[in-house]
Amino acid sequence: MSRFAAATAVVARGDGSFDAEISPEWAIGDRPNGGYLVAIMARAAVEAVTAAGAPHPHPLAAAATYLAAPPPGPALLLVDVLRTGRTASQARVALMQEGRARVEAQFTLGRLGEAAPRWSGIPLVELPPAGDCVRLPADPPGRFQVPLFNELELRVDPAVMGWAAGKPEFTGEVRGWLRTTDGTEPDPFLLLLAVDATPPATFDLGSTGWVPTLTLSTYVRAAPAPGPLRFRQRAGLVADGFVDEVCEVWDSRDRLVASATQFAAVRFPD
Amino acid sequence: MSRFAAATAVVARGDGSFDAEISPEWAIGDRPNGGYLVAIMARAAVEAVTAAGAPHPHPLAAAATYLAAPPPGPALLLVDVLRTGRTASQARVALMQEGRARVEAQFTLGRLGEAAPRWSGIPLVELPPAGDCVRLPADPPGRFQVPLFNELELRVDPAVMGWAAGKPEFTGEVRGWLRTTDGTEPDPFLLLLAVDATPPATFDLGSTGWVPTLTLSTYVRAAPAPGPLRFRQRAGLVADGFVDEVCEVWDSRDRLVASATQFAAVRFPD
Repeated sequence: MSRFAAATAVVARGDGSFDAEISPEWAIGDRPNGGYLVAIMARAAVEAVTAAGAPHPHPLAAAATYLAAPPPGPALLLVDVLRTGRTASQARVALMQEGRARVEAQFTLGRLGEAAPRWSGIPLVELPPAGDCVRLPADPPGRFQVPLFNELELRVDPAVMGWAAGKPEFTGEVRGWLRTTDGTEPDPFLLLLAVDATPPATFDLGSTGWVPTLTLSTYVRAAPAPGPLRFRQRAGLVADGFVDEVCEVWDSRDRLVASATQFAAVRFPD
Repeated sequence: MSRFAAATAVVARGDGSFDAEISPEWAIGDRPNGGYLVAIMARAAVEAVTAAGAPHPHPLAAAATYLAAPPPGPALLLVDVLRTGRTASQARVALMQEGRARVEAQFTLGRLGEAAPRWSGIPLVELPPAGDCVRLPADPPGRFQVPLFNELELRVDPAVMGWAAGKPEFTGEVRGWLRTTDGTEPDPFLLLLAVDATPPATFDLGSTGWVPTLTLSTYVRAAPAPGPLRFRQRAGLVADGFVDEVCEVWDSRDRLVASATQFAAVRFPD
């Protein structure tokens, strides 16, 4: 079992609920990555919908609302299957600790197809070769630890890395390459994490500190081919202490395999 | 009371639930518009969060999952306040008919500010004057009725209206002007409808029939100034019978006031 599969495993209790163990390793500082939590919740949703007889093994869409950052440790997942259908099923999952919901998410599940896309309005992100990009360290000097970057190798285009030296470029964008460090190939569940694994695009606008996500909506559009993923996250509007950010992910065959938008709180030095 | 306020009114039962009446007038054919349903549900969320003591009168983010199209008529709204906080609160709302949830939505509520945006990566859509745009009819020849367009005046840029004459332009975009027909000025709740009121951007790609939304995520970023709204909806990826579409809305002061993304099923003639 890959490190990602082990860190996102769920165990059915038989009453529609599931046990999970939130790892301290897929975290930013001591807070589990938000996309990592969605991946755990998606596994419970798929198991519940499959147990209800619907042939829907893949997450197609996820919308998560973050109520409180759950510390690493045991969690209980409560799943409500809202609808089973022919081409898609829908479920709600609550991630609970100590009797309190920490995250709630809605899932649309189905079966990802193999056909080529009919049309795309989203051009492939252009990147330098991975070897010319900057690997993000898990232990950056002067910043908090990012254990997640021991699990995922993120290499960022140096053209949008000025913020790391205190000189943001004000493009509002971060882009680069992503793969697992244990060699596990990407799958639809890893994409739920990949869309939230990048540094905030607002770092390039001079924002400081953590950018806590309030809500994250993800679409998984294809099962990714083996090989590295490309990503691009862009800030939309920064206003009133909030930002929306869009993230897109492509596989090694240059297909768009996932996209996501999130609404987060953001701080600036002044 | 404006027609929109009347059509989205909710009445508290005093036990955390609310009564609403789904109007047949804010509909596409005989199916209520999905954004209209979110606006009703947002009113219940705001009332419940306000009753819980949080000063959060505005929807900031909404994520809705559509389970079954509710027919016009009475509906019961069940609200769970998930968290009350200092700058934002969160709630889940289920829209029920005959004991079944038809739509579930998560809301993040707060208070929209007055400050100018700090940064925007989303340029204003350029449009011809409203008088040079094509008003969408409520009773189009050869297509189903759209009562919604008696309530909202949508005027679409003729450059992306080829589909109406059977000649799509394959831009994957629809853009234009929007205002209420009774003169009601836009407010944050109307924006929840506006982001879903446009014809599908896939019409310009040759899609046929209704494009049923599976999930819709909306951010409201500012209280809109009086006057007409501008909108632009763009298709992202069309694959495997599904499409994602992004819609952005600006107010008469050219400020981005709302953005949304939806995941929908889509059909083509071949």
